[in-house]
Amino acid sequence: MAHIDLGVDEKQFPGITGPMRFRPETAKPLNELAEVLLRAPHSLPAGERELIAAYVSGRNDCNFCCASHSAFAAVQLDEGYTLVDQVRADLDTAPVSAKLRALLRIAGAVQVSGRQVTTELVEAARAEGATDVEIHDTVLIAAAFCMFNRYVDGLGTFAPEGRDAYAESARRVVEVGYGNAIPMD
Amino acid sequence: MAHIDLGVDEKQFPGITGPMRFRPETAKPLNELAEVLLRAPHSLPAGERELIAAYVSGRNDCNFCCASHSAFAAVQLDEGYTLVDQVRADLDTAPVSAKLRALLRIAGAVQVSGRQVTTELVEAARAEGATDVEIHDTVLIAAAFCMFNRYVDGLGTFAPEGRDAYAESARRVVEVGYGNAIPMD
Repeated sequence: MAHIDLGVDEKQFPGITGPMRFRPETAKPLNELAEVLLRAPHSLPAGERELIAAYVSGRNDCNFCCASHSAFAAVQLDEGYTLVDQVRADLDTAPVSAKLRALLRIAGAVQVSGRQVTTELVEAARAEGATDVEIHDTVLIAAAFCMFNRYVDGLGTFAPEGRDAYAESARRVVEVGYGNAIPMD
Repeated sequence: MAHIDLGVDEKQFPGITGPMRFRPETAKPLNELAEVLLRAPHSLPAGERELIAAYVSGRNDCNFCCASHSAFAAVQLDEGYTLVDQVRADLDTAPVSAKLRALLRIAGAVQVSGRQVTTELVEAARAEGATDVEIHDTVLIAAAFCMFNRYVDGLGTFAPEGRDAYAESARRVVEVGYGNAIPMD
């Protein structure tokens, strides 16, 4: 049970959806941030941006965010869950592009601390063709999930088990976007 | 020098202000989030909310955010920098209310991981009169600064030294708010 009374049935509104209904004033900018970073038109495909979110959430041990964004990545990547699982299991050997691997390494550094991002990590991404916007957005996606993960777990919210539980939210996020995926009334 | 070309003079636009000018699409929800959490009308005074932000930023070793929000707290607290310094030096003995001390302990747990927030920490805050909204917002302020700190340091931005360098931004944030404090063109 969550640490505070979110005013919802947690089975119906698991993870971040309960706190977002509890506090719509903060839900609005949080959803807008996710929409710009993960779903707006971009040189990095949405599936790759969701993969960065899932990768960071896994490293933060946030079950709800990791399961959610793994699902959101899987439905938008040709390789589906197979690639998500490979990246989360061993980034060094996962069959991703050299650019995406370099960006995921930056994201992994950010997960520990912003101070872990070195000139070498950034230069490695740039050498594989990453642009300044792609590097900026990778840092901010990773940083944002260090927030979302702490928000979800810091309030002790419920995380359903199993991939099936995340299929419907994946469908909704891809179809209608972050601002509209959670019924707010 | 920042890891990417932010297109600004970093002495003129230090810390988060450079990345915000570089990417106004993400600056907008980030500023809105800060405005709701730190400056909008609330049962917790703005100075106390800024103190939570400064405390978490200090624990994340983010010089720019810690100096900024210490200044924003100091100008809005009767005790000024004295109280900010006391809280950052030793939370157990700092002369804050029992409620604020309990909320700062929750924030300190969130800084490490959302999973560090225990029922005991939340019950201790509630026993001192903290409301569900105050507990929610404390968790989200702490989580948000785990993002802002990583954003600022993950891009390798410049942090001016000395308190004087943060006095003008403190004046602007208090006077015109987060969305208007940074000149965007």
